[in-house]
Amino acid sequence: MTIRYPNGNAYQAPTAKTGPKFPSTYTNYGKRGMTLEEELNESNTYYETNGVAVVHKKPTPIRIVKVDYPKRSAAVIKEAYFSTASTTDYNGVYQGHYLDFDAKETRNKGSFPLKNFHQHQIDHMRACTAQGGICFAIIKFVERQEVFLYRATDLFTFWDEQTRGGRKSIPYSEIAAHGINIPVGLQPPIPYLKAVDQLL
Amino acid sequence: MTIRYPNGNAYQAPTAKTGPKFPSTYTNYGKRGMTLEEELNESNTYYETNGVAVVHKKPTPIRIVKVDYPKRSAAVIKEAYFSTASTTDYNGVYQGHYLDFDAKETRNKGSFPLKNFHQHQIDHMRACTAQGGICFAIIKFVERQEVFLYRATDLFTFWDEQTRGGRKSIPYSEIAAHGINIPVGLQPPIPYLKAVDQLL
Repeated sequence: MTIRYPNGNAYQAPTAKTGPKFPSTYTNYGKRGMTLEEELNESNTYYETNGVAVVHKKPTPIRIVKVDYPKRSAAVIKEAYFSTASTTDYNGVYQGHYLDFDAKETRNKGSFPLKNFHQHQIDHMRACTAQGGICFAIIKFVERQEVFLYRATDLFTFWDEQTRGGRKSIPYSEIAAHGINIPVGLQPPIPYLKAVDQLL
Repeated sequence: MTIRYPNGNAYQAPTAKTGPKFPSTYTNYGKRGMTLEEELNESNTYYETNGVAVVHKKPTPIRIVKVDYPKRSAAVIKEAYFSTASTTDYNGVYQGHYLDFDAKETRNKGSFPLKNFHQHQIDHMRACTAQGGICFAIIKFVERQEVFLYRATDLFTFWDEQTRGGRKSIPYSEIAAHGINIPVGLQPPIPYLKAVDQLL
């Protein structure tokens, strides 16, 4: 039986993956176990509710093969497959600026593996950058409990070097030096717009 | 057996719904039968390929209930339902501007029924407008073969009047007078950015 929280979300017993990610001195027990995506969705809801920005995660693209239309009920999708997005996951508008980003987390401590990105996401961020959009990645080092905004233009440099036989990851030291640290908060959990302000 | 075009799209025998929608004097036989969504997707591909703008339709949101993970095959979604989007369908970036819009078609000749919009889409466009985004509707009068860009701020006026007991549709004459006509083309099929230029 699925046990549910009052908000309808299913309870998941904490595991190494979903369990507390904060040092024991961190007392916000209500937030422990949130994935980066959940933290960003909550941050975006906070931002929109407070009139700060309008940013949404795009739905996962699904290729639908078979749909049943039962009488007097909602259509049921009976066969479908996950497909690959042609864009990044998040976009929106902030003080007249177009924002476009992807969020990735790694359990590595020393570097961020570039295989977390796909060519089409890089292509999309390049095209948006060329149109004057503000593009970046939000990278979370889970074990370190550190979150960074890393500019798309810096990401492009490492991506291009990789395709020419360069290293397959971005060192943590590079991201810490040239990215913008986002101090993890409560409300919003990931106040990334403070980091975006430094790009404007 | 599904017959496919060289581009992989399935052939659909024309019906009253999918068949030719243009007067017989219209000679662009290659395009006949495209829905407004298909025309916009093709326009957006044209715009992106030519470095003019980056605009995408968001995937349809799906609530997934059951997924099978067969060994050595892709995950198969076995039960899922269509859910309601919390945003409009299209957004992107054009010359540094955030664009946000929905596309609707009606077979009515005399007016555009407001029931084509939902409260959350109106709310979303209001929030984006407040952030400096450029928000509008693309409205196609199918029988007239006319397409208009209609400003979100004008749409809000009619929407608010409706909620106070006003009329449930926007007269064609109003849209023709205050909207911006988009002359239907070949490449792109719906050159809506020319109309957007008049909003900048």
